[in-house]
Amino acid sequence: MAEQQTYNVAIVGATGAVGQKIKKILEDKQFPVKQLKLLSSARSAGKEETFNGETIIVEEAAPESFEGVDIALFSAGGSISKQLAPEAVKRGAVVVDNTSAFRMDKDVPLVVPEVNPEDIAEHQGIIANPNCSTIQMVAALKPIKDAFGIGKIIVSTYQAVSGAGNAAVEELYEQSKDYLEGNEVNAEILPVKGDKKHFPIAFNALPQIDVFGDNGFTFEEMKMINETKKIMHDEALNVAATCVRLPFATSHAESVYIEVDQEDLNVTDIWKTLEAADGVILQDNPEEQEYPTPQSAQDKEEVFVGRVRKDLDNPKGFHLWVVSDNLLKGAAWNTVQIAQTLVERGGLKK
Amino acid sequence: MAEQQTYNVAIVGATGAVGQKIKKILEDKQFPVKQLKLLSSARSAGKEETFNGETIIVEEAAPESFEGVDIALFSAGGSISKQLAPEAVKRGAVVVDNTSAFRMDKDVPLVVPEVNPEDIAEHQGIIANPNCSTIQMVAALKPIKDAFGIGKIIVSTYQAVSGAGNAAVEELYEQSKDYLEGNEVNAEILPVKGDKKHFPIAFNALPQIDVFGDNGFTFEEMKMINETKKIMHDEALNVAATCVRLPFATSHAESVYIEVDQEDLNVTDIWKTLEAADGVILQDNPEEQEYPTPQSAQDKEEVFVGRVRKDLDNPKGFHLWVVSDNLLKGAAWNTVQIAQTLVERGGLKK
Repeated sequence: MAEQQTYNVAIVGATGAVGQKIKKILEDKQFPVKQLKLLSSARSAGKEETFNGETIIVEEAAPESFEGVDIALFSAGGSISKQLAPEAVKRGAVVVDNTSAFRMDKDVPLVVPEVNPEDIAEHQGIIANPNCSTIQMVAALKPIKDAFGIGKIIVSTYQAVSGAGNAAVEELYEQSKDYLEGNEVNAEILPVKGDKKHFPIAFNALPQIDVFGDNGFTFEEMKMINETKKIMHDEALNVAATCVRLPFATSHAESVYIEVDQEDLNVTDIWKTLEAADGVILQDNPEEQEYPTPQSAQDKEEVFVGRVRKDLDNPKGFHLWVVSDNLLKGAAWNTVQIAQTLVERGGLKK
Repeated sequence: MAEQQTYNVAIVGATGAVGQKIKKILEDKQFPVKQLKLLSSARSAGKEETFNGETIIVEEAAPESFEGVDIALFSAGGSISKQLAPEAVKRGAVVVDNTSAFRMDKDVPLVVPEVNPEDIAEHQGIIANPNCSTIQMVAALKPIKDAFGIGKIIVSTYQAVSGAGNAAVEELYEQSKDYLEGNEVNAEILPVKGDKKHFPIAFNALPQIDVFGDNGFTFEEMKMINETKKIMHDEALNVAATCVRLPFATSHAESVYIEVDQEDLNVTDIWKTLEAADGVILQDNPEEQEYPTPQSAQDKEEVFVGRVRKDLDNPKGFHLWVVSDNLLKGAAWNTVQIAQTLVERGGLKK
């Protein structure tokens, strides 16, 4: 029996929220790791981490860090990816990038393994992990699109604070405490770190995620629109998004309206399709008040769908409520899934 | 100069969240009150309240409470309205009812004074105040519909906990404290008091407001759908709603997609229409991060609109973000506005 092939893996942004989840998933899923490198900024270098019972010292990420690395999983922000991903590729690594740096590049596959795993084969060194809010939506909608066609998507999101990083979660909890104790509430991070104004997120809703573009849509909304078309291989698909940040730490929820290509479908047809879909769990029983919530989806890998309803006016219209852990399927788990698929399909053989 | 006519006014549910706001607005707006009666359940009867500097003892509501009353403002739940509103009418009062008891009755006008004040004239004793989430949406959309036509509305709501009453707000704050202190979180009220299951609202989102109907939509969603058509006098209008409860106390927000009848409109056309609209304030400047939030709309009478965007695919499609204080324009203020309009239009003359 042949020994299982193993790989040198690097995590860039290893001490961040997503980096930590990636490390845990590599352990939990027994990813075939030969050696794991944990890379970070200078500030976090030197920290001790454990992986499969062994201690690993976090190193500062530099071009030469990627010598001998087979797979580099990037989750340290777009500017780090832009700077170091090409260096990793130059040294023979395949990069799975969890930032927006390369997602819309023609030469970079944008992959949700349940949706378009075949795109991985076309990589030229970098494979991009889509935006968290995109991943869960396309995972739920692709099986419906394959079965019945989808021409139009209108989504309003209910997004968790952890999408803006650990410091934003701390801000939510600090603000919540101050609000409950009647103290002044300070806003320094959300809606967007580095933008001109900041507003409280505790006991509030902020209709801004990422900065605004000239067309009035935010970058987050444009990511959902453009990435969905790219992943679905359908430039003619109509997609509209309104993205809203809400006061909970984990899991994004989405109110999704779709128009399918057929007039004679009913809720049962959508249910059957979702029940058969990889990575999707149907939680839809109004009579028993069964539907997913951000808290019920937390720490779970799957995308949960409930509240499926046929539109009362448009026979092609359906409404769905889609929830998933934004740090897992929306980030760390999808990243590792891409690496797994890459390995299984032989995409790492040189 | 003729003396201003004054009226005997009763508030039913005077000690509740909305009843208290109604009393304050009657004072603030110097409503022409001759005598104010505060009515409640037996439990709250005997409480002392002040109105225009005078002490009023809360009385238990009974059929004979309405003898001599000109205007009765009901906000004590649907069953109380069903029982006592006809008794008030029998005794010569005009009832403005802030429950769902009579909203869809053919003989009962359903009124947002900025939208359909003329309907008041057709009352037969009872005028209904629409559901909070409906009021703010139609206030924002009616001027657009009048100017450009609207054929389709798809709304996803972000609704405050106070819509479920004061006890639900206490539950939100108790749960929030327990969550932050690492204690067990108890859910006993939301999503719906008296329904089979309860889920935490603190740091969560619940896609259920009111109970479920057989078609998979909740009653709250059906209220938005049916009431919008009735208020707009347009049974052919397509309306779809997904209603979600969120962890903040005050103000509902709504992500609204509309399809107008014209293809050549742009955002400026919508802006101009909203700027000229009664009771609506446009807050829409992405460059300066100006948009309404639940906290910014709190304690204000108006309906705030921001994030106006033209759909990128459908030339007739527009997206809006509509926010208003659910206890004021969504309830108490709209109720008093109806009474004001009634008085101004002579609807109380016998």
